[in-house]
Amino acid sequence: MQISKPTLLLDKTRVLRNIERMADKAQRHGVVLRPHFKTHQSAQIGEWFREFGIDRITVSSVEMAHYFAQAGWRDITIAFPVNIRAIDTLNMLAQTISLNLLVESTETVSYLIRHLKQPATLWLKIDTGYGRTGVPSANEELILTIAEQIVWTPHLQLGGLLAHAGHSYHARSPEEVVAIFDDTRKQLYYLKTMLEQACGTEIRISVGDTPGCSLATTFDGIDEIRPGNFVFYDLMQWRLGACQEEDIAVALACPVVAKHADRNEVIIQGGAVHLSKEALQESDGSSCYGLVCRLLDDRWSRSLDGARVRAVSQEHGIISMPRRDFERVRVGELLVILPVHSCLTANLMGSYLTFDHEALDMMR
Amino acid sequence: MQISKPTLLLDKTRVLRNIERMADKAQRHGVVLRPHFKTHQSAQIGEWFREFGIDRITVSSVEMAHYFAQAGWRDITIAFPVNIRAIDTLNMLAQTISLNLLVESTETVSYLIRHLKQPATLWLKIDTGYGRTGVPSANEELILTIAEQIVWTPHLQLGGLLAHAGHSYHARSPEEVVAIFDDTRKQLYYLKTMLEQACGTEIRISVGDTPGCSLATTFDGIDEIRPGNFVFYDLMQWRLGACQEEDIAVALACPVVAKHADRNEVIIQGGAVHLSKEALQESDGSSCYGLVCRLLDDRWSRSLDGARVRAVSQEHGIISMPRRDFERVRVGELLVILPVHSCLTANLMGSYLTFDHEALDMMR
Repeated sequence: MQISKPTLLLDKTRVLRNIERMADKAQRHGVVLRPHFKTHQSAQIGEWFREFGIDRITVSSVEMAHYFAQAGWRDITIAFPVNIRAIDTLNMLAQTISLNLLVESTETVSYLIRHLKQPATLWLKIDTGYGRTGVPSANEELILTIAEQIVWTPHLQLGGLLAHAGHSYHARSPEEVVAIFDDTRKQLYYLKTMLEQACGTEIRISVGDTPGCSLATTFDGIDEIRPGNFVFYDLMQWRLGACQEEDIAVALACPVVAKHADRNEVIIQGGAVHLSKEALQESDGSSCYGLVCRLLDDRWSRSLDGARVRAVSQEHGIISMPRRDFERVRVGELLVILPVHSCLTANLMGSYLTFDHEALDMMR
Repeated sequence: MQISKPTLLLDKTRVLRNIERMADKAQRHGVVLRPHFKTHQSAQIGEWFREFGIDRITVSSVEMAHYFAQAGWRDITIAFPVNIRAIDTLNMLAQTISLNLLVESTETVSYLIRHLKQPATLWLKIDTGYGRTGVPSANEELILTIAEQIVWTPHLQLGGLLAHAGHSYHARSPEEVVAIFDDTRKQLYYLKTMLEQACGTEIRISVGDTPGCSLATTFDGIDEIRPGNFVFYDLMQWRLGACQEEDIAVALACPVVAKHADRNEVIIQGGAVHLSKEALQESDGSSCYGLVCRLLDDRWSRSLDGARVRAVSQEHGIISMPRRDFERVRVGELLVILPVHSCLTANLMGSYLTFDHEALDMMR
């Protein structure tokens, strides 16, 4: 391929297969798939979801909601505590699309009651153990207070309970991922029952996270799932057991610029400004910033055993590899790096190149 | 300020002071300052250097050389092993500017002898202990071989020896930074003497790294310094003792979106896609992704004692802070985060906002 700088390759066959698998799973379990688009951030890739019946999406910021609303999406959840400084854009969005917002305090709901001029649906963000955002699920009093505050406001609708069990990323086995998913599901179901009795309105349940949605087999009580990373997957998901290596659908093609025979290391242009500094910790305490593949005609190879990006600086990647592979590498060729965290790599790269030579843009 | 999303603030007074201080130091020691522009990546900020007499610059990629050549810079060093896949752009650049390239193997020099159609200056990249790129300084035979290969080629000029003592970033004290700088200086001086005798041509010495250039007091034998980060500095430099907190010239303004009184934590929109995942390790093993300041009218405050960004996910930052500060924070206000690594934060943000409301663009 005519590539002269670090370039994010996208395997469209794998992307479509990943979307189809998750859409089928959602349908089989009777839940709505509202995919999180923060992973790809691309209007063009967004279109690929439509043929699988997707018409509702999730985003992570007001700016991203604006971008995808302009791309024709009409039902968007901003899965982030409401940024009230962006109230003008929120009002503009709520006028044209079905807008779903996350709240977790009476203060923010009070602000929205006063300043949101259009109808919107509010979801109560619940913390089921991740410890990042949301009302702790044990705080039933606050949950009920916020729910009633919303229900009593004419132009606001209570969508239900929404959680992101991001602690699944710290799980040590697929079984532990599923246990965290199930635990979240049950906590939310308990709160749903409580709220439905107290408020007399239907309370839906929305859960996220790619590891849980990929590995769980029971979705009872859940109305909606919001995984995002599954569209590309990455080494972090592969390490968790949430995907196979052959599901990873983006990889960074990098020019080889130097070889160091004394230490079996290859230097690529491909560093922290391309891959990000997200690393996997190896059992010996060292870091892995990516696995290393060869570029073939219409795909990349399986990753080379024993080869990895062991360090990155701003533009450089240092690849350590077995002697036999090292000897075959030539300065000026391309190596292909499987990313540790595809969301961050895609965000840094800003565009994709398919094997059909199609360039796909992202939000900027 | 009318800011509704994470925004990179730039304190122009501090930037100019940082440039002036380094330019004065270079002049005092009789060395050329060839600043590395990978930190700011902005044609507009580049212009600010000209009033301090700067007319030569350093960049980290062929694309960045192209960007700054278009912005009128006429003497550029690409401080990265030559990416031979970009030979067409290199030929185009060499035709219009004084182009300096880094080499570290006979193979790459042979390639350039065959494919570089325009005169260019090659610098021998020497590894003085960092272990990333360059010929190890002990390998005098290879250094001499490459030097002679360049000297014998009519359209190539041998600039000299170039090193980046990046291991200064692992130093535990300012004294250790200076010791690493001095060690690099002496290794290069030894090689210079050897090469000048063997090749009969003048060999210059170019060294980089902001910690070393900020802290060193002896520059004997050095012809050129290439620090970059000093234009902004950051918490990593501050931790190394290379700057004061009040030298840090960029910081990220972030909307507060939630508060968690049970754990004295504030959630901001400001995560890995804004700050990067670069972290400082605290003595208790925890991570710090940024220090926290208040936004004042025309600057940010000193960092709040005991407050830090303790975790980041894609869009979220989690700030842990003392109770007294926590109580004063309001959802919807802006907090200002001093970055751990300003180069990566700037690269992610893609633009700057000064306190004069001037928006500064970057290379895209």
